[in-house]
Amino acid sequence: MTIYNFSAGPAVLPKEVLKKAQAELLDYAASGMSVLELSHRSSEFADIIEQAERLLRDLMGIPDNYKVLFLQGGASTQFSMLPLNLAKGKKAYYVVAGSWGKKAYTEAVKLAKSFPFEPLLLASSEEDNFRQLPSFKADEIDPEAAYVHVTTNNTIEGTALYDLPATNGVPLVADMSSNILAFDYRVEDFGLIYAGAQKNIGPAGVTVVIVREDLLNSEPTLSSMLDYRIQADNGSLYNTPPTFAIYLAKLVFEWVKDLGGLQEMEARNREKSGLLYDFIEQSDFYQSPVRYQKERSLANIPFVSPSPDLDAKFIKEAGLAGFKNIKGHRSVGGMRASLYNAFPLQGVKDLIDFMARFEAENS
Amino acid sequence: MTIYNFSAGPAVLPKEVLKKAQAELLDYAASGMSVLELSHRSSEFADIIEQAERLLRDLMGIPDNYKVLFLQGGASTQFSMLPLNLAKGKKAYYVVAGSWGKKAYTEAVKLAKSFPFEPLLLASSEEDNFRQLPSFKADEIDPEAAYVHVTTNNTIEGTALYDLPATNGVPLVADMSSNILAFDYRVEDFGLIYAGAQKNIGPAGVTVVIVREDLLNSEPTLSSMLDYRIQADNGSLYNTPPTFAIYLAKLVFEWVKDLGGLQEMEARNREKSGLLYDFIEQSDFYQSPVRYQKERSLANIPFVSPSPDLDAKFIKEAGLAGFKNIKGHRSVGGMRASLYNAFPLQGVKDLIDFMARFEAENS
Repeated sequence: MTIYNFSAGPAVLPKEVLKKAQAELLDYAASGMSVLELSHRSSEFADIIEQAERLLRDLMGIPDNYKVLFLQGGASTQFSMLPLNLAKGKKAYYVVAGSWGKKAYTEAVKLAKSFPFEPLLLASSEEDNFRQLPSFKADEIDPEAAYVHVTTNNTIEGTALYDLPATNGVPLVADMSSNILAFDYRVEDFGLIYAGAQKNIGPAGVTVVIVREDLLNSEPTLSSMLDYRIQADNGSLYNTPPTFAIYLAKLVFEWVKDLGGLQEMEARNREKSGLLYDFIEQSDFYQSPVRYQKERSLANIPFVSPSPDLDAKFIKEAGLAGFKNIKGHRSVGGMRASLYNAFPLQGVKDLIDFMARFEAENS
Repeated sequence: MTIYNFSAGPAVLPKEVLKKAQAELLDYAASGMSVLELSHRSSEFADIIEQAERLLRDLMGIPDNYKVLFLQGGASTQFSMLPLNLAKGKKAYYVVAGSWGKKAYTEAVKLAKSFPFEPLLLASSEEDNFRQLPSFKADEIDPEAAYVHVTTNNTIEGTALYDLPATNGVPLVADMSSNILAFDYRVEDFGLIYAGAQKNIGPAGVTVVIVREDLLNSEPTLSSMLDYRIQADNGSLYNTPPTFAIYLAKLVFEWVKDLGGLQEMEARNREKSGLLYDFIEQSDFYQSPVRYQKERSLANIPFVSPSPDLDAKFIKEAGLAGFKNIKGHRSVGGMRASLYNAFPLQGVKDLIDFMARFEAENS
């Protein structure tokens, strides 16, 4: 039985990447050492992290005036690190379009109790259960603010931000965790981008931060590990970085490049998600909770059957048929198919066949 | 040619562990998924992290009133996280016996500029270039203080703390990064222990924190990710943990247990380091910078030849002969042999043979 892993993250990785990692796990580049054993100060690892950065710069078209950092702690650590570095004494706006955006805002509010800055809720669609993106007017934004924070893809709710909002000249900061490398954004449109790796970059344990140099903090923050400038000045080697996760990220970047880069990834993701959306749309049995077609995520596709009982039955039978981790997030229920870059087209086709059978049997 | 990796971290891992990881890298426990692809909410990963914790509890004899956390950010993040959680409004003492202890203290001083607590330098041996451990009297310590911070093994300088100091009833907090699982400490003697994994636990990217429950912070800290209580309440799953690093740690714990546990590890480390120390001592050519025998590290053994030129020659020729990463830390020069748990006895014997030949050819 073919196993398809629909997990929202940690998620499916390219088989080619896993095979390469497996083949060289005991002896990296004829060093006689595993890549897991390489000193982060060794020439071998210096090559790995330099190549990883260069590949990511090529893939995303990252301009020279942006720094690329490989950090630890996940996007959740960025929720605090971002305002600590960029927002001191300033306003910081949050657009809350999903659970993760809400977490980012909530963390900012928590931090503001002991660190001087002013987090502001610019817009939220929580009242609508995040079934659509919230809207706002650029002239509501104080042009002196530190940033406007958005989430480019709402992993749990299945919406995504493709048309970036006007922000009255204030830098746009994005949590891009669940669609980095999957949709071809222009890095120049952002002041800072951060992303946990465990969807489209590699394994859990490394977080990519892309930050415009002029936004780097001018004063040290309260912790060196949470200081973008220190991390940038040390090339992400201020302390021991998560070396294996960076190595795997490098392999994934090579895989994306070999396949044709971000335009190709986006095209493939449109094809994969399009098949599933089309199927859901023609069905009277399945429904998408997302309100507008133009806001549908290419990466995370939530859907429901006519009842929670049928949802539970679907998840159980799907699991037995090899469709793993298709249960929706515990906060929203239903099902969710996460179709990241490494998820194969055939898996979508097979899922649709299964969905059709399940519909015939249960409607 | 056999390659011996003397790296101070990331460091040599048990071959058996690497082989097991390699064998199951594409299909973990017949799940059809790589362990790298497992959702951190899956039953498979729940088993992994539970087993990892249980094994570590068994190995170290961790009492039930201590929490075990698997975090990110390395020991360097603990330098800030520790006082943020434990020291609010209190005194916190630092014993500085090496470069890492100094970093811990320096970070505390940095944090104290924006967070209310009082870091105090209790003792330092920096004036003696950390060739010995500093001493202090227990009655210098305010019994109301939050903690006394020590480093149990000084990775760079090659000293270690075996006889724990009296602290006037104040909890002892230890950075145990470079000799956790290598020396059989009693966990009850500490209020909190933290350790980066990349020496004796596993790969870089996971940090173990062992904290006595009554020391957990009673108020939230400024960041959820830096909040011991939140991490403890969520079983280290507040956000996506470094799943693969935790999996490898579990394999290493199993390996240590299979070999006989911490007493056996300590005995092996005494044998390995003893051979090298004895050889250095009988030699007129090599010298250890460590002042007292009883303070010698079982894990990191720095030594010098009669001149920096000969040191450079030694490092070069050793590298060509398969003895990798034996250069001393850039801050102290000379050579350093890191003999962590996974470093084989034969490698020490072969190194001694090489050292004898080098001495004969160059003295």
